[in-house]
Amino acid sequence: MKAYEIPGHLEVKGNHLTIGGVDAVSLAETYGTPLYVTNEDRLRDNYRRFSAAFPGVSIFFAAKSNNNLVVQRIFAQEGAGADAFSDGEIYLARMAGIPAEKILFTGNSKTDAELQYAIDSGVMVSVDSRDELLALSKLAKKAKKEVKIAFRVNPDVSADAHPKLATGLKVSKFGIPTKDIVSIYKEAKKLPGVNPVGIHCHIGSQILETAPYTEATNKMMDLVEQISGFIDLEWVDLGGGFGIPYQKGTKVPTPKDWAKAILPTFKARCKKIGISPELHLEPGRYMVADSTVLLMRVNTVKKAYKNFVGTDAGFNTLIRPAMYDSYHEAVIANKAGSPAKGEYTVVGPICESGDILATDRQLPVVEKDDIVALLDAGAYGFCMSSQYVGRPRCAEVLVHNGKADLIRKRETFDDLLQNQIMPGRLL
Amino acid sequence: MKAYEIPGHLEVKGNHLTIGGVDAVSLAETYGTPLYVTNEDRLRDNYRRFSAAFPGVSIFFAAKSNNNLVVQRIFAQEGAGADAFSDGEIYLARMAGIPAEKILFTGNSKTDAELQYAIDSGVMVSVDSRDELLALSKLAKKAKKEVKIAFRVNPDVSADAHPKLATGLKVSKFGIPTKDIVSIYKEAKKLPGVNPVGIHCHIGSQILETAPYTEATNKMMDLVEQISGFIDLEWVDLGGGFGIPYQKGTKVPTPKDWAKAILPTFKARCKKIGISPELHLEPGRYMVADSTVLLMRVNTVKKAYKNFVGTDAGFNTLIRPAMYDSYHEAVIANKAGSPAKGEYTVVGPICESGDILATDRQLPVVEKDDIVALLDAGAYGFCMSSQYVGRPRCAEVLVHNGKADLIRKRETFDDLLQNQIMPGRLL
Ligand SMILES: Cc1ncc(COP(=O)(O)O)c(C=O)c1O
Ligand SMILES: Cc1ncc(COP(=O)(O)O)c(C=O)c1O
Repeated sequence: MKAYEIPGHLEVKGNHLTIGGVDAVSLAETYGTPLYVTNEDRLRDNYRRFSAAFPGVSIFFAAKSNNNLVVQRIFAQEGAGADAFSDGEIYLARMAGIPAEKILFTGNSKTDAELQYAIDSGVMVSVDSRDELLALSKLAKKAKKEVKIAFRVNPDVSADAHPKLATGLKVSKFGIPTKDIVSIYKEAKKLPGVNPVGIHCHIGSQILETAPYTEATNKMMDLVEQISGFIDLEWVDLGGGFGIPYQKGTKVPTPKDWAKAILPTFKARCKKIGISPELHLEPGRYMVADSTVLLMRVNTVKKAYKNFVGTDAGFNTLIRPAMYDSYHEAVIANKAGSPAKGEYTVVGPICESGDILATDRQLPVVEKDDIVALLDAGAYGFCMSSQYVGRPRCAEVLVHNGKADLIRKRETFDDLLQNQIMPGRLL
Repeated sequence: MKAYEIPGHLEVKGNHLTIGGVDAVSLAETYGTPLYVTNEDRLRDNYRRFSAAFPGVSIFFAAKSNNNLVVQRIFAQEGAGADAFSDGEIYLARMAGIPAEKILFTGNSKTDAELQYAIDSGVMVSVDSRDELLALSKLAKKAKKEVKIAFRVNPDVSADAHPKLATGLKVSKFGIPTKDIVSIYKEAKKLPGVNPVGIHCHIGSQILETAPYTEATNKMMDLVEQISGFIDLEWVDLGGGFGIPYQKGTKVPTPKDWAKAILPTFKARCKKIGISPELHLEPGRYMVADSTVLLMRVNTVKKAYKNFVGTDAGFNTLIRPAMYDSYHEAVIANKAGSPAKGEYTVVGPICESGDILATDRQLPVVEKDDIVALLDAGAYGFCMSSQYVGRPRCAEVLVHNGKADLIRKRETFDDLLQNQIMPGRLL
């Protein structure tokens, strides 16, 4: 029986998993575990494949999915802009070399300080509420600047995403209801400091069907039709959400399929209205998820009521399985070509029953000190990690052309004490 | 209509919430938001109330629930030991002044490096698997040390906890099945470097009924009876899990109720066996949860399909509501005595629909710049926080006798870049 299928951009050499031409087992030995390993070429391939399917479309990488500086630098080199969800993400994107005019600040509950930061940095802002519009206008006027803005629309499109990720439902906290859109654009047009040039939505994440995108395009173009009489629309941003096949065998639309669901509708509607705005998209997961494996070491194999493989990475390191019941393929990196011999559940070192990374998987015989690779760990991975249970956060490595570079040093105990202050009277 | 009930250890003065005699609104102004504010006296009261109900019982504070150095120092002063779930937690507990011989290392998937660290530090170890026993024995023998150990038993007790937290079920990853206990104690007795002196279980968290504790006591004492013929048992550790009333009105056993469920059974069974081991308990949540409020500022009030109150703290700051659907009371700190006027849902600034802190709450009219206090945020709060969406982690303050001390500085953008390295070829 075959244990798993190694996807095309990974390889098995001498029974070891390799990524970017580098042996995963030797990476684990050199840099320690847990370790995120990102394949530079796969990042570039993902970007190019996606943008080739969307000619003329501007891609704003959703930095929240992986705000590592180096990852963003690579996309900057490829020509991407960034969707930044906080002032910190604006800062990181700028540090990575993404030009301010290609950054859209898309937070849903922005502080005045963040709005000020956005104004000072010269980025565009997707405004999420009327309160925010008024605050932004006031601050921009005071700073004698004019900020290019869009409004985030709540299009009430139901995408088949995890309920915690379905951001386009009318009950969600995001955006402005469609019925209020015309009036808020009218209001914005009159306000100083803001220039409404775009319209924005994002319908969810890890979406696996194309129909919601066609629906969202149509709903957005309905609104565009209503506002284009008095707004000079420069762009329409349909957000991200393009799913990937975490579980091998999952049928997933290709970039060309996504393009077919969006572009003809978008173009036809633009033509009918008689306008030619740019189209913007904000893929996050699609760009980064499969570029990265998470390597962890087996500390213990326990034959209890199940065969538990206890590793050194838990939901402190990768929270997706514990938080969203997400599936990641598990590969024993040092036995990557061996046939499956039993059923194992891979767990982490956290004090909660939910700290499970992979349930009931067919794997070769697993032993202490084996290296487990969790695949597709590049999106919502390190960026959601914590120091829970007193564990310093792990390291990150970039591989390219058979070579590895450490791109994030492993934290130490010192990092746990960082910023803590003991009042003198308690000494 | 009353908006909420302010619990006894908090007060309302001049319509403002106060904690430890300090005005929460002025704290938010002085230290910024989000801000965790911990009441030193409440920590000490919780400890004393609990230990008074369990005379002669040793309390090992479960550091995972709040591994802040200052919080642990306060419990150290009260006489507590610590349950440490990682080498990092051993380090923090020692730095906080908890003596090594009062620390039990309780991880479920320990690395060899962690075991070595435990040996070097002179702490006790709760061994979770046979692999771990063998590794520990080998390392301790090499270091010419003898480590006091217990085994973590999986007692198969079903406590009415959240499924992610029910750690005592037979399907969980924790501990050794009861049927293997006698033989593993026999094996341990013969091994060098380890001295089996204790027995350990932990049945779950946020437990609200006493019966599971009586059941666990009985199941553990069944095992004690079987091993006490050949093991000189020094202590029995029944773990933590004692629930608190997050939702006001929830009926929760008192420390005396917990004691009644455990002590008579424990004592009667000990007497019958003819032994007198110590009893250890490992409360985490009970000690810290209600000592702390999380203050956050309202950025926006949005009348969309619901009334959304957008604040500056999301599941990056407090993950419990998003991860476990946990309930926390919400109070408008600057309108703490005002009657409720509407229904609001308090959300954070994170890009996911699940980023909700409090759903459909009756609150006074909420406006931009109001300060929301989430109550009972001291357990599994800051310690689970992350920098997700590029947000530096927040500050912590300790209040005591009407005065405040900053005990954890707010992170800055620099902390987001910390440890990141840009390879030269990408510059
Ligand atoms: C506004 C916005 N755009 C884009 C994305 C990226 O989504 P994905 O990673 O699913 O492509 C998100 C994710 O939450 C988002 O909130
Ligand atoms: C071994 C052990 N002891 C004690 C605790 C503390 O639990 P609580 O905070 O519910 O008291 C935990 C929590 O996970 C634990 O794993």
